[in-house]
Amino acid sequence: MERTIGLLGGGQLGQMLCEAANPLGIKIVILDAEKSPAKQVNAKNDHIDGSFIDAEKIRELARQVDILTVEIEHVDTVVLEEIAERGVEILGADGKKTVKKVEVQPSWRTIRTIQDKFLQKDHLAENGVRTAISKAVQSTEEDLQAFGREMGYPFMLKARKDAYDGRGNYPVKSASDIKDALMALKGRGLYAEKWANFKMELAVMVVKTEDGTSTNGTATVAYPAVETIHEDSICKLVYAPARGVSQRIQREAQELAKKAVGSLWGKGVFGVELFLMEDGELIVNEIAPRPHNSGHYTIEACPTFSQYKSQLLSILGLMPSFPDSRIPAMFPATIMLNILGGASKPAHNEIMKHAIGIPRAALHMYGKESKPARKIGHITIVADSMAQGESLVQPLLSMTDAMRAERKGLPTPKPSTAISSKPSASRQPLVAVTMGSDSDLPVLKPGLALLTTLDIPFFVTITSAHRTPMKMHEFASTAASKGFKVIIAAAGGAAHLPGMIASATPLPVVGVPVKGSTLDGMDSLLSIVQMPRGVPVSCVAINNSINAALTAARILGTSDPVIQERLVKYAKDMEHEVIGKAERLEKVGFTEY
Amino acid sequence: MERTIGLLGGGQLGQMLCEAANPLGIKIVILDAEKSPAKQVNAKNDHIDGSFIDAEKIRELARQVDILTVEIEHVDTVVLEEIAERGVEILGADGKKTVKKVEVQPSWRTIRTIQDKFLQKDHLAENGVRTAISKAVQSTEEDLQAFGREMGYPFMLKARKDAYDGRGNYPVKSASDIKDALMALKGRGLYAEKWANFKMELAVMVVKTEDGTSTNGTATVAYPAVETIHEDSICKLVYAPARGVSQRIQREAQELAKKAVGSLWGKGVFGVELFLMEDGELIVNEIAPRPHNSGHYTIEACPTFSQYKSQLLSILGLMPSFPDSRIPAMFPATIMLNILGGASKPAHNEIMKHAIGIPRAALHMYGKESKPARKIGHITIVADSMAQGESLVQPLLSMTDAMRAERKGLPTPKPSTAISSKPSASRQPLVAVTMGSDSDLPVLKPGLALLTTLDIPFFVTITSAHRTPMKMHEFASTAASKGFKVIIAAAGGAAHLPGMIASATPLPVVGVPVKGSTLDGMDSLLSIVQMPRGVPVSCVAINNSINAALTAARILGTSDPVIQERLVKYAKDMEHEVIGKAERLEKVGFTEY
Repeated sequence: MERTIGLLGGGQLGQMLCEAANPLGIKIVILDAEKSPAKQVNAKNDHIDGSFIDAEKIRELARQVDILTVEIEHVDTVVLEEIAERGVEILGADGKKTVKKVEVQPSWRTIRTIQDKFLQKDHLAENGVRTAISKAVQSTEEDLQAFGREMGYPFMLKARKDAYDGRGNYPVKSASDIKDALMALKGRGLYAEKWANFKMELAVMVVKTEDGTSTNGTATVAYPAVETIHEDSICKLVYAPARGVSQRIQREAQELAKKAVGSLWGKGVFGVELFLMEDGELIVNEIAPRPHNSGHYTIEACPTFSQYKSQLLSILGLMPSFPDSRIPAMFPATIMLNILGGASKPAHNEIMKHAIGIPRAALHMYGKESKPARKIGHITIVADSMAQGESLVQPLLSMTDAMRAERKGLPTPKPSTAISSKPSASRQPLVAVTMGSDSDLPVLKPGLALLTTLDIPFFVTITSAHRTPMKMHEFASTAASKGFKVIIAAAGGAAHLPGMIASATPLPVVGVPVKGSTLDGMDSLLSIVQMPRGVPVSCVAINNSINAALTAARILGTSDPVIQERLVKYAKDMEHEVIGKAERLEKVGFTEY
Repeated sequence: MERTIGLLGGGQLGQMLCEAANPLGIKIVILDAEKSPAKQVNAKNDHIDGSFIDAEKIRELARQVDILTVEIEHVDTVVLEEIAERGVEILGADGKKTVKKVEVQPSWRTIRTIQDKFLQKDHLAENGVRTAISKAVQSTEEDLQAFGREMGYPFMLKARKDAYDGRGNYPVKSASDIKDALMALKGRGLYAEKWANFKMELAVMVVKTEDGTSTNGTATVAYPAVETIHEDSICKLVYAPARGVSQRIQREAQELAKKAVGSLWGKGVFGVELFLMEDGELIVNEIAPRPHNSGHYTIEACPTFSQYKSQLLSILGLMPSFPDSRIPAMFPATIMLNILGGASKPAHNEIMKHAIGIPRAALHMYGKESKPARKIGHITIVADSMAQGESLVQPLLSMTDAMRAERKGLPTPKPSTAISSKPSASRQPLVAVTMGSDSDLPVLKPGLALLTTLDIPFFVTITSAHRTPMKMHEFASTAASKGFKVIIAAAGGAAHLPGMIASATPLPVVGVPVKGSTLDGMDSLLSIVQMPRGVPVSCVAINNSINAALTAARILGTSDPVIQERLVKYAKDMEHEVIGKAERLEKVGFTEY
């Protein structure tokens, strides 16, 4: 590639950017302290030692490159504006001073807007992007009391600038907190923010591919919406895709993030943090104008198109187009766990060793000196299902929890609490079970119990083909987009339910004929099994909900080896049970048995 | 990680080894020329500038590290033997000379055996590994004439040492070639090899995890067998897995490669090149004691466990165990294309730009100066099917073909010829269709036609529950491991086939009752649908193979959005067709219709 990139900041984001750039033949010159992580993996160029907030050093970097970008937003935007608008002076071949054009991506205007969190929120609100309601305030008790009266308690008092990983935020629970809050954030520009009652934090990486602004989402490409779990105000875990979130919300989160990023200036990759509120609404929390912790998982989950490659290609104007303007993850489930420095320097050695021993885990250590709670590495696990990923991450999570306890002087947590203490990771139900009438429930119960035994999350409801036809249709036609993989439907008599559901969904539908008071179930069986060509129902034996549950499990097992293994074990257990009975019968004789 | 690795050689293999080592926190010190590719991505350590065949430089390297390894086999094994057996002298903390132990992995004995290709073949033959028949010969016409008389023409005359990328090989087509062959390989140790009539070249990367030797394949782990295409005696393309190769041959290739590597000494990753002969037999061609060009694809195809990570962990004794001692590829199809330097230095710019624009392609440039036919980079494409991969690689292949033509002064090749000359691709069938008797075939045909329309690859056979019970059981119990996802089974009368198959597989089984000459199909229906609890069959309507095919498609659609979309379209088309019929009926009236 002909154009050289100058990078302000050489931390782990810059390091992973260089790891993506090296094989693409893209040259990066780094401005940061000597031996910073990014410099460790990039010996191709003469880097600049110094601070990425030193204006003269930034100019020195600009002289050597064609395009400037950042791995951190806390940079001097005045000098970036100067360079972008007026260029930088260099000595020409003839020994005379001349001005060289240097691009800044994303635009200094975007970085400046984002640096000041209040300006950022104001900008988003002006562009019709939902955010938490916020207001610039003076550092006075009166101003905060007025905000509290208007918006209610609790609310958040936040520093406008230089705030990250929870530093610069103060929760004001009641008027009596106001004094302490002002003391804690003394000397900083402030704004107050209405408390956001979210049930989940999401994040979407968005790539902006054109310089111009637009809020209709054109010229932006989105990665999937992921779930982020924070602890001590630092990102701890990322689940990709977000767990238990419907296709509709997944899509809305991408759209909202694309709209927000589209409103900004310049090109590059952006991390958009969102809140999913209790009422299902999505709002933007904040935006980072650079690769983001919530996008690390893309290195493995999108092995040919990580967030780092997107950053490089977008700022160079080389980004290809993607179908539906989305970059899909290549695995059904990916989990990223941050490694924070422990109480002692070697505290993370155990988790490194453990991670190296997991075939589906990728360890990323940043080559940074370990300090307590400093981000020094991360682990990414790719899985065939979220359940598989969760079980692989469990022991690692126990280790980071133990490291945190040691760091904070807390008692060592019990290993088993590591996952259960997480914000109710409500799992996406995979099987939807419905019946024509509650009188069918006793027939279904053994099957539901078996799904529970097999650890397959399901959802149960009643939808009658004849008494609630509209509800039934709505249920069937939205089941796929809600994330269900299989539907089990039970009905008796003129049992139309399974077939009618099958007519409104592309999902496999398993029908359970329920035996009624006449005809011995033959009416139900034939109503369910004799479907016309084009609309398939998988029929099991009369009243046999066990086999319906097993059919659903076998279907899920086609793409989830963990479930398929459980089914192999189930068959073995069944075989042993019957062989045991046979042995007893042979031993005690048929009269005694 | 506590132990530091010393690497002899810093080319692209060493570079990719460092790219794998950096995030794992593994330190590598490189001995090679200044600015060699590996040093460009590893600025963490003070490397040694010099030649990896210079004994004193190797000793200097050994003093700094705990374990020595190679990225090239053409090294000085005498000094490696000396270091491994006697250690290396260092100055102790007290200023006195002391001896430090340094491991050499893989063993110098392995490297020495492999360096001399005749010794290598002899060693393999002694250990019961099939190879081409070969014989050490003197550089005399008499010796070669004797070989020709015994083994026939053509045969290969090969240099025993320092041969690679076809250099050092001379095909002797008849006795009259002997003089020229001796001239071409003058001054080198020689051996003659019987001509191998192979139909395909395969390669398997094998990881050896223990020091001891054993030919039963324990302590070795294999990646999938891939297909390699050579051109001008240089690797051009790698298809993973090998195209059109049965599961049995895939397995046999892995077993043979594991046996060969197991017979060698020490730990590490090995590239095993094999020939698949016209008669279906497999023989080993040669072995590389290091990461290998045929394993580059693992960087993306096994995103958490590439050949480079395997090399690092195996020599450090940290390799985890893998189920069935195999490391699976995470994608159905991966294709790797080498980029060789063109006639001019910028000749490869176009292919770099094109590769960067393909979302499913990863470009790896090695940071080497371009020289004609020098390996300067590669491109890996990950795909959901080999057909998808082939269509993505096609334009890239046309570009490398054009570069080759320019390099060799040949006329520009037609773009379309690039792929059609390749062996035909065969896709993994996802649905296994079986029937109790060939008389059931007419009932199944509409379903098979629909699977074809939906572009779902399937396999059809006959397995009678009553007439071929063993074959049926073998079919059912191996279906999952053969990569099938769903089984469709059709039978009539006392229709036991679907249920019996379901008893021997964890896959979903769709049963099609076939209507016989009596009882109107009710016998078949009840035999199939009324399965006992624990062994589920998904039954469709009598004779309705269309719905069986649709059920299979819906099942596959739960994990393949492309198939699910096709089903949505299928339902829409069906709706339009019936609405069209209704409109016509309403228009022309029921008498005209």
